[in-house]
Amino acid sequence: MGRVERPEALARAASARSGHLGTVRPDGTPHVVVVTFAVAGEKVVTAVDHKPKSTDRLQRVVNVEANRSASLLVDHYDEDWSRLWWVRIDGRAAIHREGEIHSNAVDALVAKYPQYADRPPEGPVIAIAQDRVTSWESTP
Amino acid sequence: MGRVERPEALARAASARSGHLGTVRPDGTPHVVVVTFAVAGEKVVTAVDHKPKSTDRLQRVVNVEANRSASLLVDHYDEDWSRLWWVRIDGRAAIHREGEIHSNAVDALVAKYPQYADRPPEGPVIAIAQDRVTSWESTP
Repeated sequence: MGRVERPEALARAASARSGHLGTVRPDGTPHVVVVTFAVAGEKVVTAVDHKPKSTDRLQRVVNVEANRSASLLVDHYDEDWSRLWWVRIDGRAAIHREGEIHSNAVDALVAKYPQYADRPPEGPVIAIAQDRVTSWESTP
Repeated sequence: MGRVERPEALARAASARSGHLGTVRPDGTPHVVVVTFAVAGEKVVTAVDHKPKSTDRLQRVVNVEANRSASLLVDHYDEDWSRLWWVRIDGRAAIHREGEIHSNAVDALVAKYPQYADRPPEGPVIAIAQDRVTSWESTP
């Protein structure tokens, strides 16, 4: 097992189709959601899209507005446990509802996901600084 | 889209091969790890196993000892976004290093994962009460 070098870790993360975003609710409890995401320059970005959300709609946005610490875990599960890996990006997050960071994020998401081609995400963007990149992989 | 009834949601979660555990670090930042897990009675359990961990070894245990709130997200990603679903179990967590809850948890994990047959997890068990079960699925 071992760590992966940062550029390789970021490239590996960027290629994954979904990630798990951890934030902290205003009451101090943890919140995890599965997200689509993209690497856009020095940030990793995700957006609230048109997929209908449950009752905790926008909870992730409420959380980041109260506590800017966010963690995005990207991982690969395999029944062969010698082929597991994960990359975690921890950093300060910010909400963008318009402007250059928002539009760059939407462009990056549309470029990555053909599902967004006809209907780009219109909701708030969460942009996370890549303050700390941690990674791990099992080796056969 | 809609919510799923609790028994169906728990059954669906139980069948998944990995989940994402969210906890809060003592410094108030979020922490997400990918875990193997099993439903054992009224708890959902995960254990620190023999797979070598990175430098944040046991961080999840440190976190739960300081803040007992935990969240386990189980989800299915599919490129067909009309087939997405997730189930989230939020509850108070506790660490068990021995005793009945520990042994029942290890039994449940070994029963679910053949990979554990030759080498059951020996580390601390995190048992999470199923205080709140939330779920969502997209529908075509």
